[in-house]
Amino acid sequence: MYGTFITLEGVEGAGKTTILHELHQYLLEKELETVVTREPGGIEIAEKIRNVILDRSHTNMDARTEALLYAAARRQHLVEKVIPNLEAGKVILCDRFIDSSLAYQGFARDLGIDEVFEINKFAIKECMPHITLLLNLDPRIGMERIWSNTEREQNRLDLESLSFHEKVYEGYQLLIRQFPQRIKVIDADQPYEKVLKECIEALENYFNTKNA
Amino acid sequence: MYGTFITLEGVEGAGKTTILHELHQYLLEKELETVVTREPGGIEIAEKIRNVILDRSHTNMDARTEALLYAAARRQHLVEKVIPNLEAGKVILCDRFIDSSLAYQGFARDLGIDEVFEINKFAIKECMPHITLLLNLDPRIGMERIWSNTEREQNRLDLESLSFHEKVYEGYQLLIRQFPQRIKVIDADQPYEKVLKECIEALENYFNTKNA
Repeated sequence: MYGTFITLEGVEGAGKTTILHELHQYLLEKELETVVTREPGGIEIAEKIRNVILDRSHTNMDARTEALLYAAARRQHLVEKVIPNLEAGKVILCDRFIDSSLAYQGFARDLGIDEVFEINKFAIKECMPHITLLLNLDPRIGMERIWSNTEREQNRLDLESLSFHEKVYEGYQLLIRQFPQRIKVIDADQPYEKVLKECIEALENYFNTKNA
Repeated sequence: MYGTFITLEGVEGAGKTTILHELHQYLLEKELETVVTREPGGIEIAEKIRNVILDRSHTNMDARTEALLYAAARRQHLVEKVIPNLEAGKVILCDRFIDSSLAYQGFARDLGIDEVFEINKFAIKECMPHITLLLNLDPRIGMERIWSNTEREQNRLDLESLSFHEKVYEGYQLLIRQFPQRIKVIDADQPYEKVLKECIEALENYFNTKNA
Protein backbone atom coordinates (compact mmCIF):
# COMPACT_ATOMS: atom_id res chain seq x y z
CA MET A 1 0.00 0.00 0.00
CA TYR A 2 1.38 3.36 -0.98
CA GLY A 3 -0.41 6.69 -1.13
CA THR A 4 -0.59 9.46 -3.70
CA PHE A 5 1.60 12.53 -3.57
CA ILE A 6 -0.08 15.59 -5.13
CA THR A 7 1.58 19.00 -5.23
CA LEU A 8 0.19 22.43 -6.10
CA GLU A 9 2.38 25.01 -7.77
CA GLY A 10 2.06 28.51 -9.20
CA VAL A 11 3.23 32.11 -8.97
CA GLU A 12 2.19 34.20 -5.97
CA GLY A 13 -1.49 35.09 -6.10
CA ALA A 14 -2.45 32.19 -8.38
CA GLY A 15 -5.02 31.02 -5.81
CA LYS A 16 -3.34 27.89 -4.51
CA THR A 17 -4.58 28.18 -0.94
CA THR A 18 -8.27 28.36 -1.82
CA ILE A 19 -8.02 25.58 -4.38
CA LEU A 20 -6.15 23.42 -1.91
CA HIS A 21 -9.01 23.67 0.56
CA GLU A 22 -11.56 22.71 -2.10
CA LEU A 23 -9.48 19.81 -3.36
CA HIS A 24 -9.26 18.55 0.18
CA GLN A 25 -13.07 18.48 0.34
CA TYR A 26 -13.23 16.68 -2.98
CA LEU A 27 -10.77 14.00 -1.84
CA LEU A 28 -12.63 13.50 1.43
CA GLU A 29 -15.86 13.03 -0.51
CA LYS A 30 -14.11 10.34 -2.50
CA GLU A 31 -13.35 8.75 0.89
CA LEU A 32 -9.62 9.10 0.39
CA GLU A 33 -7.74 9.73 3.61
CA THR A 34 -5.95 12.98 2.87
CA VAL A 35 -3.29 15.08 4.56
CA VAL A 36 -3.09 18.72 3.48
CA THR A 37 0.30 20.24 4.08
CA ARG A 38 2.82 22.78 2.96
CA GLU A 39 6.47 23.14 3.74
CA PRO A 40 7.47 23.51 6.57
CA GLY A 41 4.26 21.73 7.58
CA GLY A 42 4.36 22.30 11.31
CA ILE A 43 7.59 20.32 11.62
CA GLU A 44 9.56 22.16 14.31
CA ILE A 45 12.96 21.91 12.61
CA ALA A 46 11.53 22.90 9.23
CA GLU A 47 9.62 25.82 10.78
CA LYS A 48 12.86 27.12 12.25
CA ILE A 49 14.59 26.83 8.89
CA ARG A 50 11.71 28.65 7.21
CA ASN A 51 11.97 31.46 9.75
CA VAL A 52 15.58 31.96 8.70
CA ILE A 53 14.61 31.97 5.00
CA LEU A 54 11.72 34.41 5.23
CA ASP A 55 13.11 36.83 7.82
CA ARG A 56 12.74 40.24 6.22
CA SER A 57 15.97 41.46 7.79
CA HIS A 58 18.01 38.89 5.83
CA THR A 59 18.41 41.03 2.75
CA ASN A 60 21.97 39.78 2.27
CA MET A 61 21.02 36.12 2.01
CA ASP A 62 22.88 34.53 -0.87
CA ALA A 63 20.74 32.71 -3.45
CA ARG A 64 22.63 29.45 -2.93
CA THR A 65 22.15 29.67 0.83
CA GLU A 66 18.44 30.15 0.21
CA ALA A 67 18.27 27.15 -2.13
CA LEU A 68 20.09 24.91 0.37
CA LEU A 69 17.81 26.04 3.20
CA TYR A 70 14.69 25.25 1.18
CA ALA A 71 16.13 21.83 0.39
CA ALA A 72 16.88 21.25 4.10
CA ALA A 73 13.37 22.23 5.21
CA ARG A 74 11.94 20.07 2.41
CA ARG A 75 13.93 17.07 3.56
CA GLN A 76 12.76 17.30 7.15
CA HIS A 77 9.11 17.84 6.20
CA LEU A 78 9.34 14.89 3.83
CA VAL A 79 10.86 12.56 6.40
CA GLU A 80 8.62 13.52 9.29
CA LYS A 81 5.31 14.04 7.51
CA VAL A 82 5.07 13.20 3.80
CA ILE A 83 6.74 9.78 3.67
CA PRO A 84 5.08 8.31 6.82
CA ASN A 85 1.65 9.31 5.48
CA LEU A 86 2.38 7.97 1.99
CA GLU A 87 3.53 4.73 3.55
CA ALA A 88 0.22 4.60 5.42
CA GLY A 89 -1.50 4.76 2.04
CA LYS A 90 -2.83 8.30 2.38
CA VAL A 91 -3.15 11.09 -0.16
CA ILE A 92 -0.80 14.02 0.43
CA LEU A 93 -1.89 17.38 -0.91
CA CYS A 94 1.10 19.68 -0.62
CA ASP A 95 1.22 23.43 -1.29
CA ARG A 96 4.48 23.89 -3.23
CA PHE A 97 7.34 21.41 -3.45
CA ILE A 98 10.44 20.87 -5.59
CA ASP A 99 9.14 22.79 -8.64
CA SER A 100 9.04 25.97 -6.57
CA SER A 101 12.75 25.65 -5.88
CA LEU A 102 13.44 24.96 -9.56
CA ALA A 103 11.39 27.98 -10.70
CA TYR A 104 12.36 30.41 -7.93
CA GLN A 105 15.98 29.59 -7.11
CA GLY A 106 16.92 27.59 -10.19
CA PHE A 107 15.51 29.91 -12.83
CA ALA A 108 14.47 33.26 -11.30
CA ARG A 109 17.63 33.54 -9.21
CA ASP A 110 19.77 32.23 -12.08
CA LEU A 111 21.32 29.30 -10.19
CA GLY A 112 20.32 26.90 -12.96
CA ILE A 113 17.39 24.48 -12.87
CA ASP A 114 19.67 21.44 -13.19
CA GLU A 115 21.97 22.52 -10.37
CA VAL A 116 19.08 23.18 -8.00
CA PHE A 117 17.52 19.88 -9.06
CA GLU A 118 20.72 18.12 -7.98
CA ILE A 119 20.65 19.41 -4.40
CA ASN A 120 16.94 18.66 -4.25
CA LYS A 121 17.56 15.10 -5.37
CA PHE A 122 19.90 14.84 -2.40
CA ALA A 123 17.00 16.07 -0.23
CA ILE A 124 14.12 14.02 -1.61
CA LYS A 125 15.90 11.00 -3.13
CA GLU A 126 13.26 9.26 -5.23
CA CYS A 127 10.23 10.88 -3.61
CA MET A 128 8.89 13.00 -6.48
CA PRO A 129 5.21 14.01 -6.62
CA HIS A 130 2.97 11.66 -8.56
CA ILE A 131 1.04 14.58 -10.02
CA THR A 132 1.51 18.34 -9.88
CA LEU A 133 -1.25 20.87 -10.57
CA LEU A 134 0.29 24.10 -11.84
CA LEU A 135 -2.07 27.06 -11.47
CA ASN A 136 -0.69 29.03 -14.37
CA LEU A 137 -1.20 32.77 -14.22
CA ASP A 138 0.35 35.94 -15.61
CA PRO A 139 2.39 37.16 -12.62
CA ARG A 140 1.14 40.72 -13.15
CA ILE A 141 -2.35 39.52 -12.27
CA GLY A 142 -1.03 37.43 -9.37
CA MET A 143 1.00 40.24 -7.85
CA GLU A 144 -1.89 42.69 -8.15
CA ARG A 145 -3.90 40.27 -6.03
CA ILE A 146 -1.06 40.03 -3.48
CA TRP A 147 -0.37 43.73 -3.28
CA SER A 148 -4.06 44.59 -2.88
CA ASN A 149 -4.49 42.01 -0.11
CA THR A 150 -4.02 44.10 3.02
CA GLU A 151 -4.65 41.14 5.33
CA ARG A 152 -1.67 39.17 4.11
CA GLU A 153 1.55 39.70 6.03
CA GLN A 154 4.10 40.17 3.32
CA ASN A 155 7.30 38.17 3.55
CA ARG A 156 10.71 38.58 1.96
CA LEU A 157 9.59 36.98 -1.31
CA ASP A 158 6.45 39.11 -1.63
CA LEU A 159 8.75 42.12 -1.63
CA GLU A 160 10.59 40.98 -4.75
CA SER A 161 10.03 43.03 -7.88
CA LEU A 162 7.51 42.12 -10.54
CA SER A 163 10.34 41.22 -12.90
CA PHE A 164 11.44 38.54 -10.40
CA HIS A 165 7.96 37.04 -10.40
CA GLU A 166 7.92 37.18 -14.20
CA LYS A 167 11.09 35.09 -14.20
CA VAL A 168 9.44 32.63 -11.82
CA TYR A 169 6.58 32.33 -14.31
CA GLU A 170 9.05 31.76 -17.12
CA GLY A 171 10.77 29.09 -15.02
CA TYR A 172 7.47 27.28 -14.58
CA GLN A 173 6.94 27.28 -18.36
CA LEU A 174 10.30 25.50 -18.74
CA LEU A 175 9.28 22.94 -16.13
CA ILE A 176 6.04 22.25 -18.01
CA ARG A 177 8.15 21.21 -20.97
CA GLN A 178 10.61 19.27 -18.81
CA PHE A 179 7.97 17.26 -16.92
CA PRO A 180 5.00 16.99 -19.31
CA GLN A 181 3.71 13.76 -17.75
CA ARG A 182 3.72 14.91 -14.16
CA ILE A 183 2.77 18.60 -14.40
CA LYS A 184 -0.85 19.35 -15.32
CA VAL A 185 -1.26 22.97 -16.40
CA ILE A 186 -4.42 24.70 -15.17
CA ASP A 187 -5.26 28.15 -16.52
CA ALA A 188 -5.80 30.14 -13.33
CA ASP A 189 -7.07 33.24 -15.15
CA GLN A 190 -10.61 31.87 -15.29
CA PRO A 191 -13.61 32.01 -12.97
CA TYR A 192 -12.79 30.20 -9.77
CA GLU A 193 -15.30 27.34 -10.36
CA LYS A 194 -13.72 26.62 -13.72
CA VAL A 195 -10.22 26.45 -12.22
CA LEU A 196 -11.44 24.06 -9.53
CA LYS A 197 -13.27 21.91 -12.09
CA GLU A 198 -10.14 21.53 -14.20
CA CYS A 199 -8.06 20.62 -11.14
CA ILE A 200 -10.57 17.93 -10.17
CA GLU A 201 -10.64 16.59 -13.72
CA ALA A 202 -6.88 16.31 -13.73
CA LEU A 203 -6.97 14.37 -10.47
CA GLU A 204 -9.82 12.15 -11.72
CA ASN A 205 -7.79 11.33 -14.80
CA TYR A 206 -4.79 10.53 -12.67
CA PHE A 207 -6.72 8.21 -10.34
CA ASN A 208 -8.48 6.50 -13.26
CA THR A 209 -5.18 5.84 -15.01
CA LYS A 210 -3.58 4.66 -11.78
CA ASN A 211 -6.43 2.25 -11.06
CA ALA A 212 -6.81 1.09 -14.64
CA MET B 1 45.98 39.68 -5.59
CA TYR B 2 44.40 36.68 -3.96
CA GLY B 3 44.87 35.41 -0.41
CA THR B 4 45.49 31.98 1.08
CA PHE B 5 42.72 29.80 2.41
CA ILE B 6 43.90 27.51 5.22
CA THR B 7 41.56 25.12 7.02
CA LEU B 8 42.04 23.07 10.19
CA GLU B 9 40.37 19.71 10.59
CA GLY B 10 40.25 16.86 13.07
CA VAL B 11 38.07 14.80 15.37
CA GLU B 12 36.66 16.39 18.53
CA GLY B 13 39.34 16.97 21.11
CA ALA B 14 42.23 17.01 18.61
CA GLY B 15 43.27 20.45 19.83
CA LYS B 16 42.27 22.60 16.86
CA THR B 17 41.26 25.65 18.88
CA THR B 18 44.58 26.02 20.68
CA ILE B 19 46.63 25.37 17.55
CA LEU B 20 44.53 27.88 15.62
CA HIS B 21 45.42 30.58 18.09
CA GLU B 22 49.14 29.79 17.86
CA LEU B 23 49.07 29.65 14.06
CA HIS B 24 47.45 33.06 14.06
CA GLN B 25 50.40 34.40 16.06
CA TYR B 26 52.84 32.76 13.68
CA LEU B 27 51.14 34.29 10.63
CA LEU B 28 51.06 37.73 12.23
CA GLU B 29 54.79 37.45 12.95
CA LYS B 30 55.27 36.73 9.28
CA GLU B 31 53.40 40.00 8.71
CA LEU B 32 50.61 38.26 6.86
CA GLU B 33 47.25 39.90 7.36
CA THR B 34 45.20 37.04 8.76
CA VAL B 35 41.54 36.46 9.54
CA VAL B 36 40.79 33.64 11.98
CA THR B 37 37.32 32.26 11.60
CA ARG B 38 35.11 29.24 11.94
CA GLU B 39 31.69 28.52 10.55
CA PRO B 40 29.31 30.28 11.21
CA GLY B 41 31.87 33.00 11.77
CA GLY B 42 29.65 35.63 13.35
CA ILE B 43 27.57 35.90 10.19
CA GLU B 44 24.02 36.46 11.45
CA ILE B 45 22.31 34.16 8.94
CA ALA B 46 24.90 31.42 9.41
CA GLU B 47 24.66 31.72 13.22
CA LYS B 48 20.93 31.18 13.02
CA ILE B 49 21.42 28.13 10.83
CA ARG B 50 23.98 26.74 13.26
CA ASN B 51 21.55 27.22 16.14
CA VAL B 52 19.09 24.99 14.31
CA ILE B 53 21.79 22.37 13.67
CA LEU B 54 23.17 22.19 17.19
CA ASP B 55 19.96 22.53 19.20
CA ARG B 56 20.01 19.57 21.58
CA SER B 57 16.24 19.17 21.36
CA HIS B 58 16.47 18.33 17.65
CA THR B 59 17.12 14.63 18.17
CA ASN B 60 14.93 13.78 15.16
CA MET B 61 16.99 15.80 12.67
CA ASP B 62 17.54 13.76 9.53
CA ALA B 63 21.15 13.36 8.40
CA ARG B 64 20.40 14.87 4.98
CA THR B 65 18.74 17.88 6.61
CA GLU B 66 21.86 18.31 8.72
CA ALA B 67 24.18 18.08 5.70
CA LEU B 68 22.12 20.65 3.76
CA LEU B 69 22.10 23.04 6.73
CA TYR B 70 25.87 22.82 7.11
CA ALA B 71 26.23 23.53 3.40
CA ALA B 72 23.88 26.53 3.70
CA ALA B 73 25.77 28.00 6.66
CA ARG B 74 29.04 27.34 4.82
CA ARG B 75 27.81 29.21 1.76
CA GLN B 76 26.78 32.30 3.69
CA HIS B 77 29.99 32.41 5.73
CA LEU B 78 31.99 31.99 2.53
CA VAL B 79 30.18 34.78 0.68
CA GLU B 80 30.15 37.27 3.53
CA LYS B 81 33.52 36.63 5.12
CA VAL B 82 35.91 34.21 3.42
CA ILE B 83 35.74 35.36 -0.19
CA PRO B 84 35.88 39.13 0.50
CA ASN B 85 38.97 38.64 2.66
CA LEU B 86 40.64 36.34 0.13
CA GLU B 87 39.96 38.92 -2.55
CA ALA B 88 41.62 41.49 -0.32
CA GLY B 89 44.72 39.29 -0.34
CA LYS B 90 44.47 38.12 3.27
CA VAL B 91 45.15 34.75 4.85
CA ILE B 92 42.05 32.96 6.10
CA LEU B 93 42.56 30.48 8.91
CA CYS B 94 39.32 28.56 9.25
CA ASP B 95 38.38 26.04 11.94
CA ARG B 96 36.67 23.23 10.00
CA PHE B 97 35.31 23.46 6.47
CA ILE B 98 34.15 21.07 3.76
CA ASP B 99 36.17 18.06 5.01
CA SER B 100 34.15 18.07 8.23
CA SER B 101 30.96 17.61 6.24
CA LEU B 102 32.56 14.85 4.19
CA ALA B 103 33.82 13.00 7.29
CA TYR B 104 30.82 13.62 9.58
CA GLN B 105 27.79 13.56 7.28
CA GLY B 106 29.30 11.87 4.26
CA PHE B 107 31.05 9.00 6.00
CA ALA B 108 30.01 8.79 9.66
CA ARG B 109 26.32 9.33 8.89
CA ASP B 110 26.54 7.05 5.82
CA LEU B 111 25.28 9.60 3.28
CA GLY B 112 28.27 8.97 1.03
CA ILE B 113 31.32 11.21 0.70
CA ASP B 114 30.65 11.84 -3.01
CA GLU B 115 27.01 12.79 -2.48
CA VAL B 116 27.85 15.23 0.30
CA PHE B 117 30.67 16.61 -1.82
CA GLU B 118 28.13 17.37 -4.56
CA ILE B 119 25.92 19.56 -2.38
CA ASN B 120 29.00 21.24 -0.98
CA LYS B 121 30.23 22.00 -4.49
CA PHE B 122 26.91 23.77 -4.99
CA ALA B 123 27.69 25.76 -1.82
CA ILE B 124 31.33 26.64 -2.38
CA LYS B 125 31.67 26.43 -6.18
CA GLU B 126 35.43 26.51 -6.82
CA CYS B 127 36.46 27.90 -3.45
CA MET B 128 38.34 24.94 -1.97
CA PRO B 129 41.00 25.47 0.73
CA HIS B 130 44.54 25.86 -0.56
CA ILE B 131 45.91 23.80 2.31
CA THR B 132 44.26 21.80 5.08
CA LEU B 133 46.00 20.79 8.31
CA LEU B 134 44.43 17.62 9.66
CA LEU B 135 45.15 17.10 13.37
CA ASN B 136 44.96 13.34 13.29
CA LEU B 137 44.09 11.68 16.59
CA ASP B 138 42.59 8.43 17.84
CA PRO B 139 39.03 9.53 18.69
CA ARG B 140 39.14 7.63 21.98
CA ILE B 141 41.84 10.06 23.15
CA GLY B 142 39.94 13.02 21.72
CA MET B 143 36.65 12.15 23.35
CA GLU B 144 38.31 11.52 26.70
CA ARG B 145 39.58 15.10 26.50
CA ILE B 146 36.08 16.37 25.62
CA TRP B 147 34.23 14.39 28.26
CA SER B 148 36.66 15.40 30.99
CA ASN B 149 36.38 19.09 30.08
CA THR B 150 33.68 20.31 32.44
CA GLU B 151 33.90 23.88 31.18
CA ARG B 152 32.81 23.01 27.68
CA GLU B 153 29.09 23.22 27.01
CA GLN B 154 28.35 20.02 25.17
CA ASN B 155 26.33 20.24 21.97
CA ARG B 156 24.34 17.70 20.00
CA LEU B 157 27.46 16.32 18.30
CA ASP B 158 29.41 15.95 21.55
CA LEU B 159 26.64 13.64 22.71
CA GLU B 160 27.19 11.19 19.88
CA SER B 161 28.64 7.81 20.81
CA LEU B 162 32.31 6.96 20.58
CA SER B 163 31.58 4.67 17.64
CA PHE B 164 30.27 7.70 15.73
CA HIS B 165 33.51 9.58 16.36
CA GLU B 166 35.46 6.51 15.29
CA LYS B 167 33.62 6.60 11.99
CA VAL B 168 34.46 10.30 11.65
CA TYR B 169 38.11 9.37 12.13
CA GLU B 170 37.82 6.65 9.51
CA GLY B 171 36.21 9.19 7.15
CA TYR B 172 39.17 11.52 7.59
CA GLN B 173 41.56 8.68 6.67
CA LEU B 174 39.66 8.26 3.39
CA LEU B 175 39.91 12.00 2.71
CA ILE B 176 43.68 11.88 3.27
CA ARG B 177 43.90 9.40 0.41
CA GLN B 178 41.43 11.35 -1.73
CA PHE B 179 43.18 14.73 -1.37
CA PRO B 180 46.86 13.91 -0.77
CA GLN B 181 48.08 17.25 -2.15
CA ARG B 182 45.83 19.49 -0.13
CA ILE B 183 45.55 17.67 3.19
CA LYS B 184 48.64 17.68 5.41
CA VAL B 185 48.40 15.08 8.15
CA ILE B 186 49.68 16.14 11.58
CA ASP B 187 49.97 13.54 14.33
CA ALA B 188 48.10 15.20 17.20
CA ASP B 189 49.05 12.53 19.74
CA GLN B 190 52.36 14.26 20.48
CA PRO B 191 53.46 16.96 22.90
CA TYR B 192 51.75 20.19 22.02
CA GLU B 193 54.94 22.01 20.90
CA LYS B 194 55.68 19.20 18.45
CA VAL B 195 52.18 19.39 16.96
CA LEU B 196 52.51 23.14 16.53
CA LYS B 197 55.96 22.81 15.01
CA GLU B 198 54.72 20.36 12.39
CA CYS B 199 51.77 22.61 11.54
CA ILE B 200 54.09 25.56 11.03
CA GLU B 201 56.45 23.47 8.89
CA ALA B 202 53.54 22.42 6.69
CA LEU B 203 52.54 26.06 6.22
CA GLU B 204 56.15 27.11 5.55
CA ASN B 205 56.41 24.45 2.87
CA TYR B 206 53.17 25.63 1.33
CA PHE B 207 54.23 29.28 1.25
CA ASN B 208 57.68 28.38 -0.09
CA THR B 209 56.20 26.31 -2.91
CA LYS B 210 53.61 28.99 -3.67
CA ASN B 211 56.25 31.70 -3.89
CA ALA B 212 58.77 29.55 -5.73
